[in-house]
Amino acid sequence: MKIRDKVEKLRQLMKENQMDAYIIPSFDAHQSEYVAEHWKSRQWISGFTGSAGTVVITLEDAGLWTDGRYYIQAEKQLENSGIRLFRMVDPGVPSYTEWLEDVLKEGSTVGFDGSIFLIEMVKAMEKALKTKRIELKMEQDLIDELWEDRPEMPKSSIFVHDVKYAGKSRVEKLNEVRAELKSKGANYYILTSLDDIAWLLNIRGADVPNNPIAIANVIVAEHKCYLFIDSCKVPSEVKLELEAEGIELKVYHEILPFLQSLKSGDAIILDTNKTNISLYNAINNNTKKMECPNITTKLKAIKNEVEIENLRWCEKKDGVAMVKFIKWLKNFVDKEEITEISAEEILEDFRRQQDGFVEPSFDTIAGYKEHAAMMHYKANKETQYTLMNEGFFLIDSGGQYFDGTTDITRTIVLGNLTEEEKRDFTLVLKGIIALSSVKFLHGATGSNLDVLARQPIWQYGLDYKCGTGHGVGFFLNVHEGPQRINKIPDKIKLEKGMIITNEPGIYLEGKYGIRIENMMLVDEDEKTEFGQFMKFESITYCPIDLAGINKDMLTESEKQWLNNYHKEVYTKLAPYLDEEEKVWLREETREI
Amino acid sequence: MKIRDKVEKLRQLMKENQMDAYIIPSFDAHQSEYVAEHWKSRQWISGFTGSAGTVVITLEDAGLWTDGRYYIQAEKQLENSGIRLFRMVDPGVPSYTEWLEDVLKEGSTVGFDGSIFLIEMVKAMEKALKTKRIELKMEQDLIDELWEDRPEMPKSSIFVHDVKYAGKSRVEKLNEVRAELKSKGANYYILTSLDDIAWLLNIRGADVPNNPIAIANVIVAEHKCYLFIDSCKVPSEVKLELEAEGIELKVYHEILPFLQSLKSGDAIILDTNKTNISLYNAINNNTKKMECPNITTKLKAIKNEVEIENLRWCEKKDGVAMVKFIKWLKNFVDKEEITEISAEEILEDFRRQQDGFVEPSFDTIAGYKEHAAMMHYKANKETQYTLMNEGFFLIDSGGQYFDGTTDITRTIVLGNLTEEEKRDFTLVLKGIIALSSVKFLHGATGSNLDVLARQPIWQYGLDYKCGTGHGVGFFLNVHEGPQRINKIPDKIKLEKGMIITNEPGIYLEGKYGIRIENMMLVDEDEKTEFGQFMKFESITYCPIDLAGINKDMLTESEKQWLNNYHKEVYTKLAPYLDEEEKVWLREETREI
Repeated sequence: MKIRDKVEKLRQLMKENQMDAYIIPSFDAHQSEYVAEHWKSRQWISGFTGSAGTVVITLEDAGLWTDGRYYIQAEKQLENSGIRLFRMVDPGVPSYTEWLEDVLKEGSTVGFDGSIFLIEMVKAMEKALKTKRIELKMEQDLIDELWEDRPEMPKSSIFVHDVKYAGKSRVEKLNEVRAELKSKGANYYILTSLDDIAWLLNIRGADVPNNPIAIANVIVAEHKCYLFIDSCKVPSEVKLELEAEGIELKVYHEILPFLQSLKSGDAIILDTNKTNISLYNAINNNTKKMECPNITTKLKAIKNEVEIENLRWCEKKDGVAMVKFIKWLKNFVDKEEITEISAEEILEDFRRQQDGFVEPSFDTIAGYKEHAAMMHYKANKETQYTLMNEGFFLIDSGGQYFDGTTDITRTIVLGNLTEEEKRDFTLVLKGIIALSSVKFLHGATGSNLDVLARQPIWQYGLDYKCGTGHGVGFFLNVHEGPQRINKIPDKIKLEKGMIITNEPGIYLEGKYGIRIENMMLVDEDEKTEFGQFMKFESITYCPIDLAGINKDMLTESEKQWLNNYHKEVYTKLAPYLDEEEKVWLREETREI
Repeated sequence: MKIRDKVEKLRQLMKENQMDAYIIPSFDAHQSEYVAEHWKSRQWISGFTGSAGTVVITLEDAGLWTDGRYYIQAEKQLENSGIRLFRMVDPGVPSYTEWLEDVLKEGSTVGFDGSIFLIEMVKAMEKALKTKRIELKMEQDLIDELWEDRPEMPKSSIFVHDVKYAGKSRVEKLNEVRAELKSKGANYYILTSLDDIAWLLNIRGADVPNNPIAIANVIVAEHKCYLFIDSCKVPSEVKLELEAEGIELKVYHEILPFLQSLKSGDAIILDTNKTNISLYNAINNNTKKMECPNITTKLKAIKNEVEIENLRWCEKKDGVAMVKFIKWLKNFVDKEEITEISAEEILEDFRRQQDGFVEPSFDTIAGYKEHAAMMHYKANKETQYTLMNEGFFLIDSGGQYFDGTTDITRTIVLGNLTEEEKRDFTLVLKGIIALSSVKFLHGATGSNLDVLARQPIWQYGLDYKCGTGHGVGFFLNVHEGPQRINKIPDKIKLEKGMIITNEPGIYLEGKYGIRIENMMLVDEDEKTEFGQFMKFESITYCPIDLAGINKDMLTESEKQWLNNYHKEVYTKLAPYLDEEEKVWLREETREI
């Protein structure tokens, strides 16, 4: 079915159901960033494949709201669809709620599937639309009625994530959560985000590519814990292990009657930014609903010492794979036909040779020349480039290992560069160095520090239309908050033990894209009478291409940072390389 | 009466009125930063003279909550008072609401004078205390019953601020406000902040030292504007001018019956962060209350071209006064007895010689040696120092002129410095330079940029426990938002035409204090495909003491900034100096 036909059919259904608009977001029922095929309604209705974006259909018009990362891609994919692109972060562009408020008549009805909308979003929408007495209908998934070959819910098996990796048993973790419940005077806690569930119960799954999670819901009670999950997904030995530790298994959809059955004396904690409105509406009216930021999110974000030790080792393995890959690429680029996709596959092969590798941690972005200007580019066979011995090749990739999750970007110089390319590469390097080397007072948030990476780039009238860094899970999601480094004001302090990426970039449409990305561990620096100072430790070990640098643009202390970093890369990786690789790495990490 | 006796008497009154706690903030009924003597209840009850702080008295305990600027001062002033200091920005210290929630029994009553509490504060308090069913009684000003010689409300005359300074007539300004009212569907707008009122009506007063405002309230209606002010304060020619432009004068307290008389079809806009709860409670229940950020605040913050032109001239005059003062001080410090207070007076004399000078824009902070470590130090005759030819003398001062408000700090080197003193002076200089020279993308807020000034200081394990910068009014309040530069997350974008200070510092208790402060104008830089870039223009013209600098710590570009700044200082000021002064300034602004 063509996009235009799908939209028309949806409009028919909307009319039958007395809806004047219908919203299709990119979410699943668990606020996952990477959603299972079953939930890709937004992609199905619009053809837009980006990870973030919302489609709104009215009887006369249709729009897609997405952010700067996807402008170029969305424009291409929406061509001839009848769906207009709303560049949602640009000045003057209305949000879809503002747009609905504007285009709909008084007393209209807006429909959506409540199970894929967060409580907080619905509340905000209700507030915004009430001035025009616009009603929300959130009980029906109209896309489900239209989508004939809709994929089933995933059915992969779960497995136990050994405590030798996780560092903390599920009993310890449950006790930490229960202590919080007690201090807040609640006796139930609902947890629907899949990374939190996997972390809390030390289980992993494979329901979504790249994210080792399993689709499930959890309710923690004072003495029990309920895991709502399809029973076919739980091997009997896992079931036994969980049950032995007080975790009762129930069928996935049983959570709705369970919530209805709560008593009037009960008090349930939920995070309105993490729980969908259908679950919220299911809770017995007499039960006290206590809104509170997700308890496990912060516990999970601060890595324990076992996790950190594992991760350091994991990063070495990942660095070895990257070094082998870059060496191979630079050697063979003018000898063999290497394409964006074949390069990506070779890198994955190098990772697969490493111990404990499970799968890539996200879809590799492998872009040559102007393809790399699309921040979230995905190569395809029809349009991909063959790499040549000139210009930049940007590769952003990562691995899921039992002992950690990695995320690294290197922009590899394949041959001659223009002065402008060198300048921009050096500006990005200056950005990553500035942020990596900052010593900051405890209490600073990512929005306080973001400018450090951006400032050298701003100096030349350039910018990157995305955040500078994101949290990373531990053998879990590659994007995992709450910490982040972003211009947008936030109140999340950077705490010892958090992992965060540092990835400034420059993206010139039609020309090239440059990004350099390291993962960093937040650690303590000195404590003085002014407070506890903090620092970042870069834990990604891989050379930054010296061929891209205009040395005259670096200060002495920037050169010193780079030399120290490269020295560490060599020291960490050399023991795992053969002689030829060592010689190569020695040269790539030479002092400048 | 001793502090202990006052507190005991208050406790008696609390008991008589069935109150378990009573809160005395530092506010007046208009959210002024500098309050008239009449409203200094918090100072009267506690003896603490700092500008910010809240006293809470329970039947058994008493506390003062204040911020890092005042820790040292508050500790001294609270000695033997029975009132404990709560260092409110330190980790783990409860807010006074949290403290009350903790120490009070279920069902207790907390009292305060509603006319000096913002709507938003009361709402937050209600929310926090409702879990313990604590009630708020906000109708009584108990301090008024105890304070026998309480000063009267100020009665100074108002005068017209000529449009040749203001740049925009009151009719134009009222029309801008009315356009906003119309677009929001309201027919009344209540304005109680005194700087907004003075700006809107192009009037000034002298009800509070340093702030040329008059105590009043304003209600803007569709075709009328009501100014609630004591009639004795309005000279007849001003009354005629105002009335001729549709502004009706009413007695100050008449605003309460006026609000009660609104109709059910009426809609009144108010800013819950700028309006007190007594006025809110007075509004007719059937009138629609529309909460909205103060309309005039943003209009006022963005200076028009006439204001900017006036201000540039004003800053030159202020710079001339500063140059004459510093030259005199350096010349005579080892020849005459100069004290902190006499130096302050001489500087004021130099300012008085300038055209259009009205009064200082705030209490001068003139601190020698360790006195300057108190950020908001006020010298007194008993404890002040005589200046000698060594160490630092910090002087933070400003002027109110018809053509602008100034705020400048210089740390003046009177003689030998230790290596540590030079290092710290240079770190502060690096901070001010980093922020002054940033080029940033439009959309950045002060909380995004704050780190630039702080980073060189953090590098050495130091910090300053206050913001980096504040907005400044135009012949109005020296602290005037909404813009600011602070670590605390905020959403206020820095816009072209805003004025903001840049004032990092280092304060070492018992040793010395260093601050360098310039005012900056936000301006546009280039516009590229990535957006509108912005820059700061430093508009304070006064040399930064080269004797304080360790040149080895400055980068080439930092030296260049300083040399350019000093060149501009010389160029702007020289025409207004005599030959000897020129020679002196040439030397003080020499290239390094």
